[in-house]
Amino acid sequence: MNFKENFRLQSIELNEKRVIRDAIHDYIHVDHLIIWRLINSKEMQRLRRIKQLGGTYQVFQSAEHSRFVHSLGVYQVVRRMLETECLTNALSDYDKLCVMCAGLLHDIGHGPFSHSFEGVFEENHEDMTVRMILEESEVHDILVSLYKQLPQDVASIIQHTHPNRILIQMVSSQLDADRMDYLLRDSYMSGTTYGHFDMSRILRTMRIHDGKIVYKESGVQAIENYILARYHMYWQVYYHPTARSYEHLLQSVFQRVKDLYYDGYVFQTHLHYLIPMLEHHFQVSDFVDLDEAVILYYFKEFTREKDFILSDLSSRFLNRHLFKYKQLKSQKDLMSIKAIAQEKGYHPDYYIVSDNQKQIPYLHYGESGELSEIEILDSEGCLSPLPMKSEIVSAILNSKRFKSDQKVFFPKEIKDELSIF
Amino acid sequence: MNFKENFRLQSIELNEKRVIRDAIHDYIHVDHLIIWRLINSKEMQRLRRIKQLGGTYQVFQSAEHSRFVHSLGVYQVVRRMLETECLTNALSDYDKLCVMCAGLLHDIGHGPFSHSFEGVFEENHEDMTVRMILEESEVHDILVSLYKQLPQDVASIIQHTHPNRILIQMVSSQLDADRMDYLLRDSYMSGTTYGHFDMSRILRTMRIHDGKIVYKESGVQAIENYILARYHMYWQVYYHPTARSYEHLLQSVFQRVKDLYYDGYVFQTHLHYLIPMLEHHFQVSDFVDLDEAVILYYFKEFTREKDFILSDLSSRFLNRHLFKYKQLKSQKDLMSIKAIAQEKGYHPDYYIVSDNQKQIPYLHYGESGELSEIEILDSEGCLSPLPMKSEIVSAILNSKRFKSDQKVFFPKEIKDELSIF
Amino acid sequence: MNFKENFRLQSIELNEKRVIRDAIHDYIHVDHLIIWRLINSKEMQRLRRIKQLGGTYQVFQSAEHSRFVHSLGVYQVVRRMLETECLTNALSDYDKLCVMCAGLLHDIGHGPFSHSFEGVFEENHEDMTVRMILEESEVHDILVSLYKQLPQDVASIIQHTHPNRILIQMVSSQLDADRMDYLLRDSYMSGTTYGHFDMSRILRTMRIHDGKIVYKESGVQAIENYILARYHMYWQVYYHPTARSYEHLLQSVFQRVKDLYYDGYVFQTHLHYLIPMLEHHFQVSDFVDLDEAVILYYFKEFTREKDFILSDLSSRFLNRHLFKYKQLKSQKDLMSIKAIAQEKGYHPDYYIVSDNQKQIPYLHYGESGELSEIEILDSEGCLSPLPMKSEIVSAILNSKRFKSDQKVFFPKEIKDELSIF
Amino acid sequence: MNFKENFRLQSIELNEKRVIRDAIHDYIHVDHLIIWRLINSKEMQRLRRIKQLGGTYQVFQSAEHSRFVHSLGVYQVVRRMLETECLTNALSDYDKLCVMCAGLLHDIGHGPFSHSFEGVFEENHEDMTVRMILEESEVHDILVSLYKQLPQDVASIIQHTHPNRILIQMVSSQLDADRMDYLLRDSYMSGTTYGHFDMSRILRTMRIHDGKIVYKESGVQAIENYILARYHMYWQVYYHPTARSYEHLLQSVFQRVKDLYYDGYVFQTHLHYLIPMLEHHFQVSDFVDLDEAVILYYFKEFTREKDFILSDLSSRFLNRHLFKYKQLKSQKDLMSIKAIAQEKGYHPDYYIVSDNQKQIPYLHYGESGELSEIEILDSEGCLSPLPMKSEIVSAILNSKRFKSDQKVFFPKEIKDELSIF
Repeated sequence: MNFKENFRLQSIELNEKRVIRDAIHDYIHVDHLIIWRLINSKEMQRLRRIKQLGGTYQVFQSAEHSRFVHSLGVYQVVRRMLETECLTNALSDYDKLCVMCAGLLHDIGHGPFSHSFEGVFEENHEDMTVRMILEESEVHDILVSLYKQLPQDVASIIQHTHPNRILIQMVSSQLDADRMDYLLRDSYMSGTTYGHFDMSRILRTMRIHDGKIVYKESGVQAIENYILARYHMYWQVYYHPTARSYEHLLQSVFQRVKDLYYDGYVFQTHLHYLIPMLEHHFQVSDFVDLDEAVILYYFKEFTREKDFILSDLSSRFLNRHLFKYKQLKSQKDLMSIKAIAQEKGYHPDYYIVSDNQKQIPYLHYGESGELSEIEILDSEGCLSPLPMKSEIVSAILNSKRFKSDQKVFFPKEIKDELSIF
Repeated sequence: MNFKENFRLQSIELNEKRVIRDAIHDYIHVDHLIIWRLINSKEMQRLRRIKQLGGTYQVFQSAEHSRFVHSLGVYQVVRRMLETECLTNALSDYDKLCVMCAGLLHDIGHGPFSHSFEGVFEENHEDMTVRMILEESEVHDILVSLYKQLPQDVASIIQHTHPNRILIQMVSSQLDADRMDYLLRDSYMSGTTYGHFDMSRILRTMRIHDGKIVYKESGVQAIENYILARYHMYWQVYYHPTARSYEHLLQSVFQRVKDLYYDGYVFQTHLHYLIPMLEHHFQVSDFVDLDEAVILYYFKEFTREKDFILSDLSSRFLNRHLFKYKQLKSQKDLMSIKAIAQEKGYHPDYYIVSDNQKQIPYLHYGESGELSEIEILDSEGCLSPLPMKSEIVSAILNSKRFKSDQKVFFPKEIKDELSIF
Repeated sequence: MNFKENFRLQSIELNEKRVIRDAIHDYIHVDHLIIWRLINSKEMQRLRRIKQLGGTYQVFQSAEHSRFVHSLGVYQVVRRMLETECLTNALSDYDKLCVMCAGLLHDIGHGPFSHSFEGVFEENHEDMTVRMILEESEVHDILVSLYKQLPQDVASIIQHTHPNRILIQMVSSQLDADRMDYLLRDSYMSGTTYGHFDMSRILRTMRIHDGKIVYKESGVQAIENYILARYHMYWQVYYHPTARSYEHLLQSVFQRVKDLYYDGYVFQTHLHYLIPMLEHHFQVSDFVDLDEAVILYYFKEFTREKDFILSDLSSRFLNRHLFKYKQLKSQKDLMSIKAIAQEKGYHPDYYIVSDNQKQIPYLHYGESGELSEIEILDSEGCLSPLPMKSEIVSAILNSKRFKSDQKVFFPKEIKDELSIF
Repeated sequence: MNFKENFRLQSIELNEKRVIRDAIHDYIHVDHLIIWRLINSKEMQRLRRIKQLGGTYQVFQSAEHSRFVHSLGVYQVVRRMLETECLTNALSDYDKLCVMCAGLLHDIGHGPFSHSFEGVFEENHEDMTVRMILEESEVHDILVSLYKQLPQDVASIIQHTHPNRILIQMVSSQLDADRMDYLLRDSYMSGTTYGHFDMSRILRTMRIHDGKIVYKESGVQAIENYILARYHMYWQVYYHPTARSYEHLLQSVFQRVKDLYYDGYVFQTHLHYLIPMLEHHFQVSDFVDLDEAVILYYFKEFTREKDFILSDLSSRFLNRHLFKYKQLKSQKDLMSIKAIAQEKGYHPDYYIVSDNQKQIPYLHYGESGELSEIEILDSEGCLSPLPMKSEIVSAILNSKRFKSDQKVFFPKEIKDELSIF
């Protein structure tokens, strides 16, 4: 372990430190050559061509930002955490480097229009991120060029298998750099006030106790505020029905492409970049070639395909003829709605979609394999889980009826026929 | 009722409409002569010399704003409410004028350092506001000069006795112009993020139903957000222990003055402006003479009084030698603490104070005589109380254990002696 | 002219007025069906796939917004102008509709990566906007469906030929809705403070005099502030050398494609969407098919072309291997630099680019055909050009030496060889 | 000089570092015991009772902040400067302490309603600040308790006599912590946008060269922006005619008190706290006793004095019956106006005031004894004065006609009589 022990961050400092102007964090500071090289890698630059918010910008129009700026933001929050007194002292220089890299790279495995894409092509962005770090890629080469074990160490933070739990908590937990950046950023960019919370105060109350990150009791209200900010952003922004409508339309296009491909349909469009995904056999480089420009290009081409369903759905997508929606009251209603669609000439597998959104603002121990509970350190040095110290969070956890929202989405053209539901 | 029915706001429009720059609302618009005259009345100008936040600015140092700017802000929120489609149509011009006056004047009865002052001198700012509107004052004269019944109509809104419930709700309810302005303003001025909420959205979802203000279901989350903003502002700002310490010190000075006065102590300071209050016999004009400049002047004089308790407490107040505090575990402890103070030469009636703060974020029907429940109008035209439509508010209401904070405050000098508690 | 005279905006009001959340204007209000239909047209939706700031987001990373949201913003500023007392009274309902449409549509003729694209393909976005409004398009159909002369009237505002000068000033002048929105938006999105100015105050001091828009003297400082905001945004943001480097690289790719095409090179990539532009013969619909997704797709394909220059430049573009730059001192130096590039194997026509940026913060009468001087109305009712009333603007106009910035851009690989210049 | 050389800031670090929430700087950090003690001294606490903006809050109503919060802000900007790489290395720990103290204390010598007070009582706040640091005061005792020469060293920074020019520049120059804080704070509190500038960027381009602070060329635009922010704040806020009117009224009251006192008038009010000032013979402690509460108390008492001029002016002041104003065209006009006032029964010495405001946005070398020019360091290591590098600043300096604003102020009651001027 000589390298790790002897490694000093200053040995890879840039001659001239770089700053990147950012609307959320004012400046993002880059002090180390390896971070600068990672930012300028092919895999990171690809994230410029993938939007952070999928369909949400169809509702919150000014929220057009990419996963690239969010990734820079996560890196910057990790960097600010490392500047707190407690983390400065708790971590080795090598661990600091690993966690900065993990923060920066945690999203590189996202596909174009991520959620719909993953749903249809059965990919998982976290696995893909790990593959991109460990297999052949510019990112991998940059990491290895510093130290051969660096890719594994960075990947293990993202996979939640790193022995130092602090590093995992920083990048992926109920109160991590990822969530902090996206709440602030999505809120700022969408022009809503819901995602504001007091990050400075949360960072100031961070402590290390028993080898993990905990928070002083004086931070409880700032954390409550953060949890409610998240809750409200979900319902006001992320789960907005128009955004869901957009995602469903996208998913129907992807599904139709997949079904046609397996049925042997002959595409006019040369599906070059999608075939590896359809065949479930692809290299990292095939995946890196996929971005939202490619998909949008295909959609434009699809509008000229002779398969009516594919050309119609693609055209609806590009020109924002989104599905309409209404509350879905029962599965029986869904059956009837599908039957009506079928009768009116709309294939129900693609034109009728239902979903049921639910959001649980806080998770207890054991409710999730990967998310650990937020713990509070009181003035006597005892730890308690957040709900013991926060009546708001406790009240929420004990609530029986939690909001869920079940909707059915359908073409505008059959709106009248469905008015009875 | 000819005047009321025939009254048109445009008949009292200013030749040139006035705007007042404001950090919260950007511009406060004054369209009517009577509003302009009220703003420039002696009673309103006096509010410039009374701070909005009592002791809070000892903690949140930049929150030094006065009740005057808050009053302008409440007026402006009322004015914005009147611009919504639903209220524009629901109210007569005369009612609109009444509610704008009520919003502007609702705080004129506040004394200097309001809460401590009211506590000791047994005054109530709401009653005082009503007296100032109805009895001899510049404000009264201005109102009467337009229409002889105007003072009564404005006062009845503040007293919750006006027949039109909408007007009362606008100025004083769980979701009123007063609370909206102070949350936004106190939050902005103190530099905390806790008080932000989406006022535009709340106003946009306002509707009139059955002669009262209700909110469309699509506004529920903005309202939840507002309720939690209020909850967090209470704990983070208004109930901050240092702010309470400051209020207690103030109260002890007032109490000492009162006790000495009744005991026949001969003051060096000429108590001119306080005597009517001490004698419980005063005119409106006596009250108007009282502001924080007078009280601060007296406090400076008191530092030269021969009564040690009075001079010592006044000097602590002026030079910010505030009381220290700690959690109070039992009434027995309080007794022991008072005994120790006595022994060390600190009169426990003035030097040992305890309080117990509690904050209930939302009140049900009937829990308060004056606050009406927030009601939600669903798409089928049915009304429900907010907690039926908000799982967050409902969870909070059903919570058994609600935070309360009991503390004891004491002179720094006996800190060591009290370390055992 | 019966239609124009009798037309009332309320006749096309939406049953339920729409609002669009926006980070800059809080809410964008849509009151009229025709505006809502235009927003949802194919040509407007295409602007979602064209970035507002070309290469600038390579420097100001968070400024990733599209021309679509900017267009909504311009419409909203026009709408706010129409709400001022002076414009409410000065314009007919028909003129109000025309100018709202013109504000919304003024940018639809922009190509992908607009400036570089226009440079190489010799297109002009203003002409293209006019063609799209007057020729066959969804936008045209929507306008015509209301009134057959509406397209001409809207287009004439954009062409500066409309008889009512006020309408032209609102959309295109030295102080127009377009500039106001982009300064505020680009500043907010990039996280710089330079573009802030006091739009509310400027609008409040707007007056109509002699059939044109002028400003009260009390608005002079807000206007100075706006002019300097623009000046600083140009130098700090729009003319940032890295942004220029990105634009030059883009232009070199476009130029190489064009040169190869005319030379008869056989592309592996099917250039379908670009051919009409290369042939200088295209329909509006061909142009509408072009967006940044198509261009980015082509660039990815070009990285596989056998022409080394094309594949190399495309790959530099996609992976952000931008040209380096330095101050250019003379044309002689430029010759020598080109010679060195040639020698090192870099074709100087594509790999060596120079530019000279200059920005004049304010233009006098007659210095530009289309921009009219800002005029100030004093309290005696006399008009003066802005520089007579603003010592800052006057000082700037009289300044002899105005900043220009001449730079040469080149591949990183020959940085050392060029260190002598 | 052993103490100075061996002194380490960490030796006086607080056990628990303090933070003060602030609307401008988010948090103000207090790391050292001596700073904490100075903040809690009598002389600093007195600044809570003196408003930063004199009469300006009569126009920009929400700008009610005190000199106390501004002083904290100046300290925080100094602290941020010390964190820049260049200053961290350039200064000894002792010098760092001195300059933090100087930043915090630079305004303690301000009287109540500073400008008017100084004008009439012939005091100078800078001299007074120095006296308070060097003579008997809590502040003096705190400084001396650490090191006997500390008061002199701190005072010499404020007096511009300290041998290390860097320290002087930080606290008092054309680009210092004082101006930076007040522009940001006054702008935020008043709700205007004019005072915004990019402080982060200015601090990032700060360098030490030849023993003084200079700025890298890349900071020029941020500095231009700052200079123009200052220019606009002067005209829009500080020199607003209503604010001047308020100051003149104040000055007339002070003048009347002084004249009456020298004439042997017998005051009903006991002038206790003012007599030392009237006698021009006072101790530091006499001055510390004066704050705006005392003055406001006196004004209230004055409304009951039998001297009509004094009681009338005081009442106008308290109830905001400010003087009206108009442009003053000539000294001859002023004579005539005074004659009319006299005739109407208004003593012209107190009721007719004229002033002439002028603001020079930037000063060259030698134009002021104490302000040194801002110098720019180019990439070749050469220094130039700012105007050589900024065409905007240069244009402004070369401008012949600089705005000045001459007005006369008079009682509203004679408005009609003066309409001819």
